[in-house]
Amino acid sequence: MKSDIDALMQERNFDALLVFGAAENNPPMTYLTGGGHVGGATLVKLRGGRTVLVCNPMERDEAARSGLEVHLYDEYPIETPGGDSAQNAALRLRAILQQLGVTGRVGVYGQTDFGPLFAMLTHFQNLMPEVQLVGEAREHSLFLYAMETKDEAEVARIRRMGQITTEVVGLTRAYLTGCAVRDDEVLLNEHGVPLTIGEMKGKIRLWLAERNAEPREGFIFAIGRDAGVPHSTGNPADVLRLGQTIVFDIYPAEAGGGYFYDFTRTWSLGYATPEAERLYNQVLEVYHQVVGQLKVNECFKEYQRLACELFERYGHKTPRTEKTPLEGYVHSLGHGVGLNIHERPASGLSAGDDNLLKPGVVVTIEPGLYYPERGMGFRIEDTYWVRLDGSFERLADYPYDFVLPMERG
Amino acid sequence: MKSDIDALMQERNFDALLVFGAAENNPPMTYLTGGGHVGGATLVKLRGGRTVLVCNPMERDEAARSGLEVHLYDEYPIETPGGDSAQNAALRLRAILQQLGVTGRVGVYGQTDFGPLFAMLTHFQNLMPEVQLVGEAREHSLFLYAMETKDEAEVARIRRMGQITTEVVGLTRAYLTGCAVRDDEVLLNEHGVPLTIGEMKGKIRLWLAERNAEPREGFIFAIGRDAGVPHSTGNPADVLRLGQTIVFDIYPAEAGGGYFYDFTRTWSLGYATPEAERLYNQVLEVYHQVVGQLKVNECFKEYQRLACELFERYGHKTPRTEKTPLEGYVHSLGHGVGLNIHERPASGLSAGDDNLLKPGVVVTIEPGLYYPERGMGFRIEDTYWVRLDGSFERLADYPYDFVLPMERG
Repeated sequence: MKSDIDALMQERNFDALLVFGAAENNPPMTYLTGGGHVGGATLVKLRGGRTVLVCNPMERDEAARSGLEVHLYDEYPIETPGGDSAQNAALRLRAILQQLGVTGRVGVYGQTDFGPLFAMLTHFQNLMPEVQLVGEAREHSLFLYAMETKDEAEVARIRRMGQITTEVVGLTRAYLTGCAVRDDEVLLNEHGVPLTIGEMKGKIRLWLAERNAEPREGFIFAIGRDAGVPHSTGNPADVLRLGQTIVFDIYPAEAGGGYFYDFTRTWSLGYATPEAERLYNQVLEVYHQVVGQLKVNECFKEYQRLACELFERYGHKTPRTEKTPLEGYVHSLGHGVGLNIHERPASGLSAGDDNLLKPGVVVTIEPGLYYPERGMGFRIEDTYWVRLDGSFERLADYPYDFVLPMERG
Repeated sequence: MKSDIDALMQERNFDALLVFGAAENNPPMTYLTGGGHVGGATLVKLRGGRTVLVCNPMERDEAARSGLEVHLYDEYPIETPGGDSAQNAALRLRAILQQLGVTGRVGVYGQTDFGPLFAMLTHFQNLMPEVQLVGEAREHSLFLYAMETKDEAEVARIRRMGQITTEVVGLTRAYLTGCAVRDDEVLLNEHGVPLTIGEMKGKIRLWLAERNAEPREGFIFAIGRDAGVPHSTGNPADVLRLGQTIVFDIYPAEAGGGYFYDFTRTWSLGYATPEAERLYNQVLEVYHQVVGQLKVNECFKEYQRLACELFERYGHKTPRTEKTPLEGYVHSLGHGVGLNIHERPASGLSAGDDNLLKPGVVVTIEPGLYYPERGMGFRIEDTYWVRLDGSFERLADYPYDFVLPMERG
């Protein structure tokens, strides 16, 4: 939580944090400013002290909404104009840090255009050697540690995204099962034309937009072989048919770069082949087994081990039996969700032992099976919060039906 | 254009380019790969030679759609596991570059999470000192130079976004002018409730989503004082009223991080105050004067000078009369538009002399006037392409009406 930041700075021996970039779609900046239409800003957080946001004059009103101490770039005149923008920005950054009395180790953060900032900080390091800039590997990132546990206010926002997500999934299901079906098992849209993945995805985008939710990292609506490739988002030209597995993995965020929800269901329209039905039931069984055993403060990867063990008993390859299986259970069990679609804690077998299901974390549980060569894939995913009392709350409810009967018989 | 990249590399004495990050919402990666659901990829472009995309195994199918030579991270085993992800990624990057025979100066690019990449490249520089990593200040960026001129295929996509943009503006106008009006001049929505900026923005988001367009950088729909602050996006709680200036600046992109369009109109519903009418007409006059004088291969900032001169004749402050005016004409005339909402060429008075209106550029022309203390602001903006024959094409047409008569009288 935000209140952990000073302690996390102390652990890292950081005297200050520097966050660069826009206030939207930039998790550390959004976390500290609350978002808003602020472009290329510079945020300085001193250990145990002030947080200062420096922005362009045109964005002063938006920046003020953050409630932080706002300064304008104009207040820091550049000593030797004529250099390039990277040199000038380096001089200005020195002026800002000198005014705030910053020296020592400073962590650098921000979702931004890498090249110009790298150029600027290369100049800056020569100008102000008394400051040591430190980039952190993702798994060590102070912000990912702070963000790992969520308070009630944050979870209220994630829960609301869960409601929106399941509403949109419900609309999708209703639309699909209401379609007419041609003799060759192809679904027809309201104009009597074969329904494509692209058209269905367009409707889903619309339903999300109506609810002020954004598919900021895209979403997966994939059928047949594509459903068997975990990160294939689906071929827009593919036509929807009965009896094929559809993986619908939807992870929208609040518009403007806020909190995500993450959710997956697998469907087969009208009927399923016996093989698909058998594999789906294995995934559902593993899902329920894992969820039934979740305990607060356990290591998340213990449940990945459990999922692997259960899938191996059914004869599938897993990340335990080979390094990167291309079929079977090919990924890890879940991940933290917040302002990032993937954040701490991690569940991979090689994840650090400090990836715990401690009170406050929000995690997905998402076992799956993938057989692209057989034209099928399966995944079931819900998002859970570990409440402060140690109980697990599924943040949105939705049925686990695999075969969706068509309404017109 | 893409065909300029090798020459631009030669000018900079770059032996290779490195692009990091996702294929979507990451302009240099989108430019070279065509987009798609590929996450943390590494692209290496050799001068005069191969372009190689290295990605995670799960994303191999999406990566293959780029048409580039695709490799998987797994092909480059890490020599000393046990380090952190930044150290491991540095070892892997060395293996990739050694295999491709890269040495010398290498430009680094990508819209990505700064800290982890900075950590990785700090390790990498120690591991492979024969490679010199170079970040470029934004105004020198090779990609912004390459992207500056657009071919017919790129402009077809921008033109299509222009059609979508003006359609949505038309729907907004029709909705507003169809509203009932209360005695106190407040607009009422279809439920008889005062219409807010927030509600109107929700409808606009919806109309964009229906057309597969995303307001990726937000959009501005601001009334009264907020209209007078150029980058204020509008207060959601503000109520729409007759006789106040509304600045509607809308700059959506193709869903998934493609090409932008940029467009602004200023409206006053029902009637306008004489002062507002006079100021609007000055902006319109300056707009037409500038557009009427555009000539191929001229320096873009000459038209900023022209706009300043014209506004100064009307008695307004401009960036020529003071450094950062807070009222009057407070910004520059326009900017290039493409995969970035702001790209080359620039029109600011301090922009380099190589910011020319050369064949292929796509630029906005957007003069404006801002008087927040008087509760009003004005801007008119269209996007133009300089055709290969040197003529200027406005990429979407839309009327310049200021006062919009209410339909119910």
